[in-house]
Amino acid sequence: MIYFITGNKNKFEEVKAILPEVRQLDIDLLEIQEIDAKEIIKKKLFEALNHSKGEFIVEDTSLYLDCLNGLPGPLIKWFLKTVGNDGLAKIAEKLGDTSAEAKTLIGYAKNRAEIYYFEGVTKGTIVKPKGEINFGWDPIFLPSGHKKTFAEMSREEKNEISMRRIALNKLKEFLRP
Amino acid sequence: MIYFITGNKNKFEEVKAILPEVRQLDIDLLEIQEIDAKEIIKKKLFEALNHSKGEFIVEDTSLYLDCLNGLPGPLIKWFLKTVGNDGLAKIAEKLGDTSAEAKTLIGYAKNRAEIYYFEGVTKGTIVKPKGEINFGWDPIFLPSGHKKTFAEMSREEKNEISMRRIALNKLKEFLRP
Repeated sequence: MIYFITGNKNKFEEVKAILPEVRQLDIDLLEIQEIDAKEIIKKKLFEALNHSKGEFIVEDTSLYLDCLNGLPGPLIKWFLKTVGNDGLAKIAEKLGDTSAEAKTLIGYAKNRAEIYYFEGVTKGTIVKPKGEINFGWDPIFLPSGHKKTFAEMSREEKNEISMRRIALNKLKEFLRP
Repeated sequence: MIYFITGNKNKFEEVKAILPEVRQLDIDLLEIQEIDAKEIIKKKLFEALNHSKGEFIVEDTSLYLDCLNGLPGPLIKWFLKTVGNDGLAKIAEKLGDTSAEAKTLIGYAKNRAEIYYFEGVTKGTIVKPKGEINFGWDPIFLPSGHKKTFAEMSREEKNEISMRRIALNKLKEFLRP
């Protein structure tokens, strides 16, 4: 049995649409202080493997600003908590480089010896917040070649170009018998 | 017996000068992902109390920028690793507010039920890096009322106005029989 570890129902729906065989497991895993998403995911997978039987999937989706050499990355939560989307947009504008990447890294642990990673990247720019404000940094991320921020798109529109979808498709390909 | 937990010899020397009875203990404690120094310290103290017998002191010294609503705080390590001192100075300048606080928080655990915190703050501004580059963010912190950055001062000069000294003196006062 393969478990996708998340407390987020929407994330799980997106996973299930691609990988119907995967079950949701809602347990709290410690997030270490790191900016390398791979290290964070690896620690979580090992904790899950210690915690229960099965195969596990853990993902990290973060925003990487070129003007901050890749920050905030997995530290995005703390940027939202302090400067917020307005602050992030201001930083990018004032530093004169609004280019950014939205990146999903998926880790899949078959067992302790077999852990695989799959990445999906969507390029874009940081803009002043627009659209539904309830989805993290979605209001400030304008994907390249589009006229709406992630927060202005329907879930279907967003999934079409989603970094999570790209990473999930790679995992699906890998799992195919 | 009271142990100060650090791998940093210089920090321990500063502590020992104020509290001669304290011993150094060099063990690795997990740093959780947090911007609240108190939470980070509390987790470390509990880990130490589980690990061995004794009373423990853990400290966190971080840089808080007004223009970033308190970031980087305990996340300073990742800012130095990505944008560095040059980047931090540029951010403060471009955002138009260079004011900052250097803050030390000391946690002292007598036992699991008795944990006390002592704070020391030094106010200052963020400037372009000047002085010895080997001490974290010292080159960009200019304490208020002074003409040298922390990195340009001798250890004695710095200790005179050090946020760590202020916090240590409060702890000393507290420990006095």
